[in-house]
Amino acid sequence: MTFSMVELIRAKRDGEELSDDALRWVIDEFTADRLPDYQLSALLMAIVFNGMTQDELAPWTEAMLHSGEVLELSGVTKPKVDKHSTGGVGDKISIPLVPIIAACGMAIPMISGRGLGHTGGTLDKMESIPGFSVFVEPADFVQQLEDIGAVMVGQTETLVPADRRMYALRDATGTVPSVPLISSSIMSKKLAEDLDGLILDVKVGSGAQMKSLADATALASTMVAVGASHDLAVTALLTNMEQPLGIAVGNANEIVESIEVLKGGGPDDIVYLTKLFATEMLLLAGTGDRDTAEASIEQVITSGHAYEVFLRLVERQGGDVAAIEDPSRLPSTENVHLVRSPRAGYLSKCDAHDIGLAAVRLGAGRARKEDDIDPGVGIMVMAKVGDTVEQDQPLAEIWYRDESSLQSALSVLDDTWGLSDIAIDPPRLILGEVK
Amino acid sequence: MTFSMVELIRAKRDGEELSDDALRWVIDEFTADRLPDYQLSALLMAIVFNGMTQDELAPWTEAMLHSGEVLELSGVTKPKVDKHSTGGVGDKISIPLVPIIAACGMAIPMISGRGLGHTGGTLDKMESIPGFSVFVEPADFVQQLEDIGAVMVGQTETLVPADRRMYALRDATGTVPSVPLISSSIMSKKLAEDLDGLILDVKVGSGAQMKSLADATALASTMVAVGASHDLAVTALLTNMEQPLGIAVGNANEIVESIEVLKGGGPDDIVYLTKLFATEMLLLAGTGDRDTAEASIEQVITSGHAYEVFLRLVERQGGDVAAIEDPSRLPSTENVHLVRSPRAGYLSKCDAHDIGLAAVRLGAGRARKEDDIDPGVGIMVMAKVGDTVEQDQPLAEIWYRDESSLQSALSVLDDTWGLSDIAIDPPRLILGEVK
Repeated sequence: MTFSMVELIRAKRDGEELSDDALRWVIDEFTADRLPDYQLSALLMAIVFNGMTQDELAPWTEAMLHSGEVLELSGVTKPKVDKHSTGGVGDKISIPLVPIIAACGMAIPMISGRGLGHTGGTLDKMESIPGFSVFVEPADFVQQLEDIGAVMVGQTETLVPADRRMYALRDATGTVPSVPLISSSIMSKKLAEDLDGLILDVKVGSGAQMKSLADATALASTMVAVGASHDLAVTALLTNMEQPLGIAVGNANEIVESIEVLKGGGPDDIVYLTKLFATEMLLLAGTGDRDTAEASIEQVITSGHAYEVFLRLVERQGGDVAAIEDPSRLPSTENVHLVRSPRAGYLSKCDAHDIGLAAVRLGAGRARKEDDIDPGVGIMVMAKVGDTVEQDQPLAEIWYRDESSLQSALSVLDDTWGLSDIAIDPPRLILGEVK
Repeated sequence: MTFSMVELIRAKRDGEELSDDALRWVIDEFTADRLPDYQLSALLMAIVFNGMTQDELAPWTEAMLHSGEVLELSGVTKPKVDKHSTGGVGDKISIPLVPIIAACGMAIPMISGRGLGHTGGTLDKMESIPGFSVFVEPADFVQQLEDIGAVMVGQTETLVPADRRMYALRDATGTVPSVPLISSSIMSKKLAEDLDGLILDVKVGSGAQMKSLADATALASTMVAVGASHDLAVTALLTNMEQPLGIAVGNANEIVESIEVLKGGGPDDIVYLTKLFATEMLLLAGTGDRDTAEASIEQVITSGHAYEVFLRLVERQGGDVAAIEDPSRLPSTENVHLVRSPRAGYLSKCDAHDIGLAAVRLGAGRARKEDDIDPGVGIMVMAKVGDTVEQDQPLAEIWYRDESSLQSALSVLDDTWGLSDIAIDPPRLILGEVK
């Protein structure tokens, strides 16, 4: 069946619902390079304004999913689960989570992204481990999942190519912030992983793509519904991203913090979220009740089993295990600038967006796609909202490479911290659940 | 000054006002072919949804105007006036109007368009005169205006190229219906004519681009304001396009009807509008009061002076004057199908959109840009809203070339006519004025 693209654009512009066949045709034509980008971008902008119904989103996502190869993981005998975060600052949860889940006997075929805007990316963080490769040959994929229970890779050329190309077009045309477009982008990739269960971490607040709980809830509900229409069990947690997660914001420093979690330490918020996501994933895989799941997770951490899995994963993907065993061998910098509290009080604000942006300015992220990142720089958040601080107490350590990047970072740390004279409760980490 | 196009798209998407410099930059980059079409189409769709303020529209239109050559008509000693219609069915007003205005001593450098969708185009109609060329060399333009007082030509490659290219993009991306985009497209071309006064005929109703009086009023007000910001006196009349204008809908048949008007005959509605627009144009040129203007117009018609000017215009642009003097020499067809009234009553509806679409199906317009038109076919509207009709009285004559085009035309003449048992007042021709 063929359609007139301009008629489809007009219909979406005028608020009409597009048919299954029409939506599949758009994705198929785009994938086959028969649709001019200028027509797709006009349609995408009309979708930004007029949205998509669930009946539109299901075939659209399905067509994207089938725009390229789908992972063939039926040979994997373990339950396959994964987790996706919509992106935040200091959000390294996936890094300790993956070996914990694998140590609990699940298979986790995680395809992650790179840093985007002010948010960090799992791939960039893992690449701060010397030698670590985020490419695994398709032939090795299933075997590694069987042997170790985990792979941590980037999107390939052949997996959901419609999403990769559409994302680049959206990035250039101001059509990123749209619940159906974000949902179909995330879910088409996760559906291509052939999973038994998926946990979504939908971040809410200053450092997140969704600034309000209402928007985040809409996104979570939409993704859960897309999963349901493909028989994939999805649980979405809405989590707070007003301040950075944990202490470390950067790349190598986030690996160090992840190792601490795997060794039974680490900041409270990171530990809490890692264990919570792990529990939900075990529940989704149907391997037992909540108590059993929580006990398994405690056991794989305290026994060192999860840490061992991480070492095997790093080694299998070419990383330098010695740098995990002795994190002082990870990239770093000797230049540290302290941001101090101007007075005593209760910390009422530590803005995640500002901290993320400052980290990018230091070189921990990319201003342009083609930029290299500096794995050794970053920010250490030394006080969290609700903490009592004294005058001159360090609020953050800025780990910088050169003076100009430090000044550039400091210039965006303007209204980042807030102090109150009355006591401030620590913010809630979990704001809601959709499943 | 340079800008980030994606930031401008985002700002317009989010309802912000773009700066003068930013808007000029967009048009300049587009004209210089440095802006990807997919970014402009996303911006255009955001404009469809969020509009443009008058402060945005003025620099945008100005930049389009200066994207190519501007007519150099300062050598023309007569007052320069023009008229533009937003397009209708049976709307041949420009054809008798141009020689009348020229005969009254004005210069009218009219740049017209071709048929679009279900509406006819002045250029197509003039080209039904054998030999008539709608291209006049720039060097001859001023001399012809001095000698005859009129030129009737099409847009050239060099005049307002930004509009020509943007229009093609809008046509392909569902971004045509937008008051600021329509306004800037029309006004950039009219401003390039270096006029002393401009009359706009903003059509309202089924056969027009603007279906409602509110939308048409918004368009008229916007264009008048753009004119004011360029020191051009503009009067806009809002006129009825629920039913076709006059009797003839097509090309050669519309030339015949225009000749009748120039000879003192013609259908009442066409005569009324032609004289009204002519009067307004003389008033805009400041050549006297309304009584004087009306008397001049009557005089140039009854004396045959306007008709003589038309003959000279046709001859000067290569047309066959013999076909004007003997209109039976114009293209025609011998195949006539009559649409008859199913019963007696008062005609309550004669849908302009349906009639226009049927004429296109007959070959009087283009389904695709590259199609040729058949100048000899068309529709003669034999009863107007408010007329008493008897059973079997012809409502329309369909002048067709072959049976398949006739059937194609008849298939869209479904709910075109309405009959009432109670008397129907003839519709008002003039619905409003903006200046």
